[in-house]
Amino acid sequence: MQNPTSVKDALHATAPAESILVQGWVRTRRDAKAFSFIELNDGSCLKNLQVIADATMPGYAEVVQKLTTGASIRVQGELIASKGQGQAWEVKAAQVELMGAAGSTYPLQKKGHSMEFLREIAHLRPRANLFGAVFRVRSRLAYAVHQYYQDRGYVYVHTPIITGSDCEGAGELFRVSTLDPMNPPKNEEGGVDYEQDFFARPTYLTVSGQLEAEVFACALGKVYTFGPTFRAENSNTSRHASEFWMIEPEMAFVDLAGNMDVAEDFVKYLIRDVQEHCADDLEIFGKFVDKGLKARLDFVLERPFQRVSYTEAMDILTASGKKWEHPVKWGDNLQSEHERYLAEEHFKCPVTVYNYPKEIKPFYMRLNDDGKTVTAMDVLVPGIGEIVGGSQREERLDVLEANMDHHGLNKEDYSWYLDLRRYGSVPHSGFGLGFERMLMFVTGMANIRDVIPFARTPGNAAF
Amino acid sequence: MQNPTSVKDALHATAPAESILVQGWVRTRRDAKAFSFIELNDGSCLKNLQVIADATMPGYAEVVQKLTTGASIRVQGELIASKGQGQAWEVKAAQVELMGAAGSTYPLQKKGHSMEFLREIAHLRPRANLFGAVFRVRSRLAYAVHQYYQDRGYVYVHTPIITGSDCEGAGELFRVSTLDPMNPPKNEEGGVDYEQDFFARPTYLTVSGQLEAEVFACALGKVYTFGPTFRAENSNTSRHASEFWMIEPEMAFVDLAGNMDVAEDFVKYLIRDVQEHCADDLEIFGKFVDKGLKARLDFVLERPFQRVSYTEAMDILTASGKKWEHPVKWGDNLQSEHERYLAEEHFKCPVTVYNYPKEIKPFYMRLNDDGKTVTAMDVLVPGIGEIVGGSQREERLDVLEANMDHHGLNKEDYSWYLDLRRYGSVPHSGFGLGFERMLMFVTGMANIRDVIPFARTPGNAAF
Repeated sequence: MQNPTSVKDALHATAPAESILVQGWVRTRRDAKAFSFIELNDGSCLKNLQVIADATMPGYAEVVQKLTTGASIRVQGELIASKGQGQAWEVKAAQVELMGAAGSTYPLQKKGHSMEFLREIAHLRPRANLFGAVFRVRSRLAYAVHQYYQDRGYVYVHTPIITGSDCEGAGELFRVSTLDPMNPPKNEEGGVDYEQDFFARPTYLTVSGQLEAEVFACALGKVYTFGPTFRAENSNTSRHASEFWMIEPEMAFVDLAGNMDVAEDFVKYLIRDVQEHCADDLEIFGKFVDKGLKARLDFVLERPFQRVSYTEAMDILTASGKKWEHPVKWGDNLQSEHERYLAEEHFKCPVTVYNYPKEIKPFYMRLNDDGKTVTAMDVLVPGIGEIVGGSQREERLDVLEANMDHHGLNKEDYSWYLDLRRYGSVPHSGFGLGFERMLMFVTGMANIRDVIPFARTPGNAAF
Repeated sequence: MQNPTSVKDALHATAPAESILVQGWVRTRRDAKAFSFIELNDGSCLKNLQVIADATMPGYAEVVQKLTTGASIRVQGELIASKGQGQAWEVKAAQVELMGAAGSTYPLQKKGHSMEFLREIAHLRPRANLFGAVFRVRSRLAYAVHQYYQDRGYVYVHTPIITGSDCEGAGELFRVSTLDPMNPPKNEEGGVDYEQDFFARPTYLTVSGQLEAEVFACALGKVYTFGPTFRAENSNTSRHASEFWMIEPEMAFVDLAGNMDVAEDFVKYLIRDVQEHCADDLEIFGKFVDKGLKARLDFVLERPFQRVSYTEAMDILTASGKKWEHPVKWGDNLQSEHERYLAEEHFKCPVTVYNYPKEIKPFYMRLNDDGKTVTAMDVLVPGIGEIVGGSQREERLDVLEANMDHHGLNKEDYSWYLDLRRYGSVPHSGFGLGFERMLMFVTGMANIRDVIPFARTPGNAAF
């Protein structure tokens, strides 16, 4: 059998071809008097390849005229310059072979499906133009993440998914176990005897690879993670998933200012990369999802992110004269309404807020000389909110220990983490970028469930 | 402050520099009469940068002469051509600043530690030369995986980690739950009421993303996964971990022969890439881990993998005249001793074994016309055993349903998987490559625990 050509390659041909083999799925069929037009797609790109099947060809009535949306076919024919508009090349079929019919019960007929319905057929929606585009962009964006860090000498680290520690101290954890849930073994105190569990201790799904990434930054200099993370939060919003991917660079010898520089450069790099490599796919988002998408992405690229300390941000919010649902008070967390105001109304561009009150941030952030704030930094973007969260880490053993005591943490559990400060400690910084939030930002997709192949949310682990 | 230069960049300088700032960890210090040599490493490469600190420099007695292995320092100085052997460039220090001392309790003093001891200090072992090399190679190998598939038009898919289904039917699963393990809610039949669990059903950690990857191959053509997978097997061997990363390409319109071609090409690509990009790091493995490493990798690259059907393999094993611990009998699985004989003694090179008896393989593999075998294929490599396992998938709805019945599977649970055969079904194939096994193969490292940042094995989830 001849080597097949992808639709993408056929559409980008530089010369006609006497013989070509293409394979894929029928998007539509249109019949004229003496021939049929078949729009063929194989997922290699957004655009379809037009196939022309002449009524005189063998199997025209038996095969071609019975083709319906979703059927898979193999087409042998000639690649010729198209006389029609909208494509440079088309295939004049010599033979059309049906591989798999689709039939009238095929759920993905034509258009007009709600996003909710498409989520229910998540196993078929990648065949829809919009979702094909989403998942091609997702793939490209992931590759751009690796290119960015690999080109800059960072080492990719696979931090553990199953963990005995709770990095953020947040408590919203999934438990991982092989114990019989109906009848777990008990210890002498009458509690569950985790000594008999698979790892001989309670274990959870990771919420962040940061602490382990710090280990590697303090050995290899610049590292990054890119893996799945988990939150057992019972929040049903369009921006939260229980399982999502996160990128966490961690850099020795880098302080808060350097950390903010990398975060900004990285976010802009990702946008530029997708613009360059996914132009066709981005077009469909601009048309059907978010008409302002292109302008917004260009706008973000054109100017530096604004930088403002938490304290300055509070002043801006107070001076705004706005009525807030959550009062603006130094020491409280920024709420979504505050973040949106800063990014969307006041600065009208991405904003990096830094130096937050220590009481609202985790134990590992470096204490500033004022004794009241820590070197946290969050990047807020219009339409999404927080997309990056990071900090310079506390590298001073005594300060870190005092902070752990203050947070009520057991220092024994973190002895390995403290060792990084006992032996050759260095200033270091890092941040986390939520991959799906970034994907929402570059595609304009409004619901995180629609940028994940099979989303996991409270009550939903289908497929 | 001046921009720092990495050790790697300093060692690859093309000209001397009047002023240079380098930062890193002290590997050793040697004192001569009038100066000290400091070997500085920052993790950017295997080699150290030699720093010469003259006894007349400020802080010589207070800082330089107190430096011990593991201390972190910042050095301002001049990059000059080295008069000594073994390096082209060295730094003549003008100022040496101590960032973090290491002290005599630093566990990673000089050499001579056992691998077992280094596993116990997994948070410090990346600072050892050997483990720095392992984890730099791991990073490069992961990047090569992405480059291979992205350059060839494959779409990267993040298949779910938390899943309700058990792809292999193997049963060795980790349960994921937020129910109170001491007091889980009960249903009317007295069992655990999973309706009240986080996902309103029992959920597990994935053992493979294959079934979900098939969804995407049947929409986008060529896809791959690269993510963590889990096995709750209680096997304490040097080749098994409970958490490991796997690469799973899945390709529409590709049959068994095409699948074997991709597997072979991919494995060879990875070896070539690491040879090209990690030459220094590979050297240390050849010196200290496996003297035959370079020859073995070259050998694998030079010739095609042998291909042999399961039935032919059984004949070879029978004809060998060997005494086997597990008898050679058509219909039984190949045991480790059989695999090793084929790869290491009979063929003396990687072997792809295909067309296995259907009874010993999962439900989704395509039935051959003989009615007895399925289109499975395993790649066996010398020293490691199975490194790739794959198959052409059953694309015929009736045959697949019959096979599911035969395996006692509930077809309702797999209705979405069957839909791929109901609507536009296409021949398709794929395989899984164990990332850690591949890493062991290219580094010569003998224990899987030593190629994973923080290994998870029965009884062990430390860090």
